[in-house]
Amino acid sequence: MSANPPLRIGLLGHGTVGGAFATLLDERAAEIERFNGRAPKITGVLTRSEGVFEDVLADSDLVVELMGGLEPAREYLLAAMRAGKDVVSANKQLLSQHGEELFVVAREHGVHLRFEAAVAGAVPVVRLLEESLAATPIERIHGIVNGTTNFILSEMARGSSYPEALAEAQRKGYAEADPSDDVSGRDAAAKMAILARLAFGAPVHLEDVRYEGIEHLHGDDMEYAREFGLGLKLIGTAERREGGISVRVHPAFLYAGHPLSSVSGPFNAVTVESETITEITMSGPGAGGRQTASAVLGDVVSVMTGGARPPAPPLELRLIEDVESAFYLHMDVADRPSVLAAVTAVLGEQGVSIKSILQRGLGEDARLVMVTHPVLESSLREAVERVGEFEFVRSTPRTIRVIEEEFV
Amino acid sequence: MSANPPLRIGLLGHGTVGGAFATLLDERAAEIERFNGRAPKITGVLTRSEGVFEDVLADSDLVVELMGGLEPAREYLLAAMRAGKDVVSANKQLLSQHGEELFVVAREHGVHLRFEAAVAGAVPVVRLLEESLAATPIERIHGIVNGTTNFILSEMARGSSYPEALAEAQRKGYAEADPSDDVSGRDAAAKMAILARLAFGAPVHLEDVRYEGIEHLHGDDMEYAREFGLGLKLIGTAERREGGISVRVHPAFLYAGHPLSSVSGPFNAVTVESETITEITMSGPGAGGRQTASAVLGDVVSVMTGGARPPAPPLELRLIEDVESAFYLHMDVADRPSVLAAVTAVLGEQGVSIKSILQRGLGEDARLVMVTHPVLESSLREAVERVGEFEFVRSTPRTIRVIEEEFV
Repeated sequence: MSANPPLRIGLLGHGTVGGAFATLLDERAAEIERFNGRAPKITGVLTRSEGVFEDVLADSDLVVELMGGLEPAREYLLAAMRAGKDVVSANKQLLSQHGEELFVVAREHGVHLRFEAAVAGAVPVVRLLEESLAATPIERIHGIVNGTTNFILSEMARGSSYPEALAEAQRKGYAEADPSDDVSGRDAAAKMAILARLAFGAPVHLEDVRYEGIEHLHGDDMEYAREFGLGLKLIGTAERREGGISVRVHPAFLYAGHPLSSVSGPFNAVTVESETITEITMSGPGAGGRQTASAVLGDVVSVMTGGARPPAPPLELRLIEDVESAFYLHMDVADRPSVLAAVTAVLGEQGVSIKSILQRGLGEDARLVMVTHPVLESSLREAVERVGEFEFVRSTPRTIRVIEEEFV
Repeated sequence: MSANPPLRIGLLGHGTVGGAFATLLDERAAEIERFNGRAPKITGVLTRSEGVFEDVLADSDLVVELMGGLEPAREYLLAAMRAGKDVVSANKQLLSQHGEELFVVAREHGVHLRFEAAVAGAVPVVRLLEESLAATPIERIHGIVNGTTNFILSEMARGSSYPEALAEAQRKGYAEADPSDDVSGRDAAAKMAILARLAFGAPVHLEDVRYEGIEHLHGDDMEYAREFGLGLKLIGTAERREGGISVRVHPAFLYAGHPLSSVSGPFNAVTVESETITEITMSGPGAGGRQTASAVLGDVVSVMTGGARPPAPPLELRLIEDVESAFYLHMDVADRPSVLAAVTAVLGEQGVSIKSILQRGLGEDARLVMVTHPVLESSLREAVERVGEFEFVRSTPRTIRVIEEEFV
């Protein structure tokens, strides 16, 4: 074998992912050396109770940060890059809130900053955006980037209630005891911020991303959706719109033909659309210590082979808040002859045009379920508010976005 | 902008893909410069009627080969690498028949040799294997790597006959006037040879890959398959088996839950399985000049950023010919009481165990359709041959492999 010295790795954090990373690195070191002429080797570890950061840094060529949280992870990564070390991180909070600061320092010091594991677990979408698609202008990304909520929604599609599905996710270890970061959509929003920065070159941080979670969904909605041929997912979207970009996360119905509609269970998947390539979809397991460790080790190998540089300085692109979508509407009304006419009249005045409608009797009341054609969200909200004021409306109207197959 | 000199590209071949590449490069040069500090620029073009190879070579930093065919493409690529130039090629024939020779020269001269477009069009599976998965031992690849046949099979699944579906593919420009390279499975076999080399490190060339095409499929088989919940695809498989590897292409039935079963139309998709990552699936358009050009330009960008090196020197791995699969069997027999017992007895003697069976009356005859549990192909072939000798068998038994969800 080669007599090249090993690539010295300083490991910050030794929890589930850190431990899995150390094990995997050990298993794969010989094979990596066969390919790259050099084996990676962990030469220092910093945990909450052991190690001194400065010592770990001094003994390493590359720093792998698997601590999580904002501080001291941010401080350590900045210090490492300023000391000329390449860095790999799986920290989505940090990247989505301080990405631009990290990118600037990486560029200034000419070091690699890689973070595949921060976005979609083992699914290498960061690499796809950075390298393969550097050659093509991206128009839109749709992603299922949170495996926990995708598992819960898959269970609900099979008839479970939200609390039952959540409990099952917790039992299987897919959801934490406090699941709010996942089910609120915030975790997915952080990942979409990172993807949007890579895809469009504009600085997007977590606070720029509007998100809605899945806590308020009804099993009922999923049943009606099936009658329209729709499936429900928590979808992150980043897209060009009228000279700006829109980045958001919300529950959305997908038609059966959409590449993401068949992604079930605790999986992640991302569809990238552009005029040049039409669309590419990648899917795989969303999380798990060993899968995440594999993505981290992939980043280490990528640094060894000299992969992509940090993103170019940011472009200025307007963030657009009010975008067009098709919507699903659900409301209970008194079952009287003039009701449907009154509802559709108000919708029509706001420019909301109906694509399909289902009315079902419920004794003295009736349930109206509709899917609209694409309409500006603000117009839809105003229309729904006005409809909600009718005395014949028995429940607050519910709305969920519908993603049509509208490939660029 | 930067005053760095452009990356000079010598373009060999200016047909559909070559022309699309030149156009796309023009459109994207400024953006690539923004990311990489340097713009790519075509400084020489060689076509059948114009240009001199030595001049194109002398004026370039990187050679892009889009001529196709074995010679002179091979000779030119070898000469370019020996002159220290990086090279990008979309030539699957060349890579699958002379890959090892090209890799050796690339390693000897320390140059990049990239060929994303040779495998799955715009779907960056080469990159996935080279970089992300360097950290993980791959167990199996299943791929739909020929868009033409996938389109034809999708049409057949909707009720078309094979000749009708082929004619439709030709009308839409997905199939050539002489479609034999696609429908015989040979094109897919070439791509699987390239993927197998990348995944397992063993030298695999086109002549090592066993392949069957789709010309002999019956619409009838697809109907029965639907009753078993199966869909039919032309599947390339490369996998580790008992200390060796098996690489093959054949029509195969997939259960509805398989990630490739929902891939319809002229698309490509590849599922990579490993213990570490479970499975990752990538899908996208299979061909088209602009999509292929996008993959080629992605390779150019990858060379600029210093991506992966050529594969390491080959490992010795035995190629295994006789592997276990589940099978679908289809035969017409005389409708007599003892027939089913006789057939299953012979199958049982050869170790073929039946998973599901469907018998349907056809007047005096009956049709037997079965799906077996996994069995060695040689045992299955022998059993089927023996069954075919019964006087009550009215048609030559047909067999098609079935891919079960058997993730590692």
